[in-house]
Amino acid sequence: MPLFVVRHQHSPETCPARDPAMGAMLLNHLSRPSAARHGLTIKAEAVVRGAHSLFFIAEAADEAGLQEFLTPFRMAGEVEVMAASTCAGVVASGGCDMLPTPVPVASLDPADACQDAIEAGLLVHRAHPLNGETWVPELAGGAVMPNGRFYLRNHFDMPCVDAERYRLSVDGMVERRLELGLRELRNLRSESLVVTLECAGNGRSLFEPAVPGEVWGLGAVSTAEWTGVPLTEVLERAGLRPGATELLFRGADGGLVEGLPAPIRYERGLCLDQIREAGALLAYEMNGEPLSSPHGFPLRLIVPGWYAVASVKWLTEIVVTDRPFEGHYQTDKYWYQWVRDGREEGEPVTLMNVRALVASPGEGTTLQRGETAIRGVAWSGAASISRVDVSLNDGPWRQARLVGERRRSAWQWWELITQLEEPGPLAIRARATDMAGRTQPESAEWNRLGYGNNSIHRITAEVI
Amino acid sequence: MPLFVVRHQHSPETCPARDPAMGAMLLNHLSRPSAARHGLTIKAEAVVRGAHSLFFIAEAADEAGLQEFLTPFRMAGEVEVMAASTCAGVVASGGCDMLPTPVPVASLDPADACQDAIEAGLLVHRAHPLNGETWVPELAGGAVMPNGRFYLRNHFDMPCVDAERYRLSVDGMVERRLELGLRELRNLRSESLVVTLECAGNGRSLFEPAVPGEVWGLGAVSTAEWTGVPLTEVLERAGLRPGATELLFRGADGGLVEGLPAPIRYERGLCLDQIREAGALLAYEMNGEPLSSPHGFPLRLIVPGWYAVASVKWLTEIVVTDRPFEGHYQTDKYWYQWVRDGREEGEPVTLMNVRALVASPGEGTTLQRGETAIRGVAWSGAASISRVDVSLNDGPWRQARLVGERRRSAWQWWELITQLEEPGPLAIRARATDMAGRTQPESAEWNRLGYGNNSIHRITAEVI
Repeated sequence: MPLFVVRHQHSPETCPARDPAMGAMLLNHLSRPSAARHGLTIKAEAVVRGAHSLFFIAEAADEAGLQEFLTPFRMAGEVEVMAASTCAGVVASGGCDMLPTPVPVASLDPADACQDAIEAGLLVHRAHPLNGETWVPELAGGAVMPNGRFYLRNHFDMPCVDAERYRLSVDGMVERRLELGLRELRNLRSESLVVTLECAGNGRSLFEPAVPGEVWGLGAVSTAEWTGVPLTEVLERAGLRPGATELLFRGADGGLVEGLPAPIRYERGLCLDQIREAGALLAYEMNGEPLSSPHGFPLRLIVPGWYAVASVKWLTEIVVTDRPFEGHYQTDKYWYQWVRDGREEGEPVTLMNVRALVASPGEGTTLQRGETAIRGVAWSGAASISRVDVSLNDGPWRQARLVGERRRSAWQWWELITQLEEPGPLAIRARATDMAGRTQPESAEWNRLGYGNNSIHRITAEVI
Repeated sequence: MPLFVVRHQHSPETCPARDPAMGAMLLNHLSRPSAARHGLTIKAEAVVRGAHSLFFIAEAADEAGLQEFLTPFRMAGEVEVMAASTCAGVVASGGCDMLPTPVPVASLDPADACQDAIEAGLLVHRAHPLNGETWVPELAGGAVMPNGRFYLRNHFDMPCVDAERYRLSVDGMVERRLELGLRELRNLRSESLVVTLECAGNGRSLFEPAVPGEVWGLGAVSTAEWTGVPLTEVLERAGLRPGATELLFRGADGGLVEGLPAPIRYERGLCLDQIREAGALLAYEMNGEPLSSPHGFPLRLIVPGWYAVASVKWLTEIVVTDRPFEGHYQTDKYWYQWVRDGREEGEPVTLMNVRALVASPGEGTTLQRGETAIRGVAWSGAASISRVDVSLNDGPWRQARLVGERRRSAWQWWELITQLEEPGPLAIRARATDMAGRTQPESAEWNRLGYGNNSIHRITAEVI
């Protein structure tokens, strides 16, 4: 919705707030429900002291409605209406004097989405496409991450899918081609799973030498309760033809990619065994709310245990085939490229590596001497977490307590309560080990595109 | 907190948004968490089009902090900071040039809190004190209920507790009297539990004849992941003296109650055995976010399995005693008063009764013929849910499938997928049974104050 800054100025003699009845009338006029009746959303208002000057910032469907709303203020003095943009809009369009680029209604307004993300507290790396991570100290607090603080990773503009017209097509080597609307999907057997998703590039910025790609810190990971249809339920309805071994998942998002001659869609493949083992879900709810557009409304494939690249958002098509998919995001990207003994070696990005993060205390914080809780999260795509060890000032590893339920595909919250006696710098390291026996390396192996960085996390605080 | 209007103006040449990296830096600087680190709450911001002029309205603990926050803007151009008042403040003090009356910050503004509740979608029964329930169709979606949609039940104005000055006192028959600040509480052993809370009066409006009290429909129930300190951990630190058997919990909320001569605080008692069996928690987080003021910031006692009357919000005091508590909310209210064979019988309100609700389809909705999912939630304070049965048009009971994890103290999501062939009205009933063998009665026994109504839920839809 268009944004406006409004300034109202009156003389001391005509100050309407001098008459309590008139003042109360104006207050009610300015109230959110009254503004809503005029098609307005008032974001904030304030009266400058000693200046008889009222400012407010509001969204209005059109300026005429706003002008009409302002009638009582025009009777008391001057009114100035200034067309405005969000800060995110200005940054996305490259400066204050650029006109915002018109966005086809098929996409979410990137500026609005970015504004929402920063208001929810994401650390935004890029506005267009929107990429933002959770602040590491906010990873703590239990299993569930509030939806607004769940990191966002996009390759293209975020599509805005019409719920009424939406269909998931299941095609290819199937007995029956399916076209499932949202209502039909919701009428199928459902499942709820608490699943951690991590971007394969999480921690990329910590690789040395630097690698290309989104400069993720460590907060491109979060956990939610996802609710939807088990993928196998849909596949059973379609019926697989003999010889079918692979599935291609296509999202509604797409566009031009450097080095490719024509626009592509976001596509990923998985083989049937991988899908069954992971327990993949076609999710339409996230933490008890309908999936939001930035998180893939109306349907997101959730592949527990896998780096989130596999969990295709805005899923519109599933194609059953008999050969592995080899598209851009399957073979050009999301591929480990190591240099070992001078030779190139490669491997696709699949399950999340085992990893622990220290969420509390935060990097650079000051701690008082005495009893202190050190807390964080730990997860692994291969198995549940079996233990987390913590080392203070490079001392011996001490086993942390695992808190809360142990889940197959969700992070484990952990804590170590310790006595801090000595003032001075405190280095905290945490190392996770999973039930499959995998543990974290001191330093993850460097690779050209910076994937899977599960080096042991180290933060430094100050004890006073 | 003091309010300010800020205007920043730069020349077209120094427009920082021209450089995407600088733009992103400023966006993150303006983000809510970044502002919070400077002691600021930004209410709204907007950039006036074609004028290189940014306005924002913010609350700041002091102007010096605000000025420091503005440093990056001062480097790009001018900055004007205008001290301001709210419109409500101006009207209350009789004009723009009057000094605003200082307002004690002891309570949440009931109008703001009510506005927030309405905006989040609660069905508000009363604004003052604020009482609102979740819409029954929104109970579905998994285990977790988004915080904004979690029902609110208050007996008094909601206190606004200062986090810095907050102390939980543990006193009475203890070895060591404790005064625990929020930091100390967070440094104790923690636990995360998914727990359903239900108001004892949930469903009261369905009793016939009508009973006095808040006219709850069926949505005064919700589930969240609560994180905090096990109560036993705090009790162990205090050390119980011999003979201690009971605990009194006191909230920061209080006021006058009809029929009592002096203001009281919200207080409830529990005996030590009950606390240990329930696994009571002193919660400071709700679904991964710090507890909000309406839900009891900074600390809420969570007593799994019990009607929510036991889960005291804004907990400030725990008193260890050797006798049962007999205050107003223990013995005048929250007491079953039955009339059986012409005789009065009574019993305290304790564990939640076993109960299922149909969340989808919603009452009065229209369903298309064919495959349909019937879904809802079921819970019991005594044990996990063992089964849920559904009856269509008063036909035979059919067992529904239980979805998701089975938890001791959280509701169980369930579903029945069925074929609807006949057009016409469809009555859906759902009945829960728990592991302790308790099941729902056709009609719960009427009692004077309308507690514990677990009559079988019936909704009517229309098949077309």
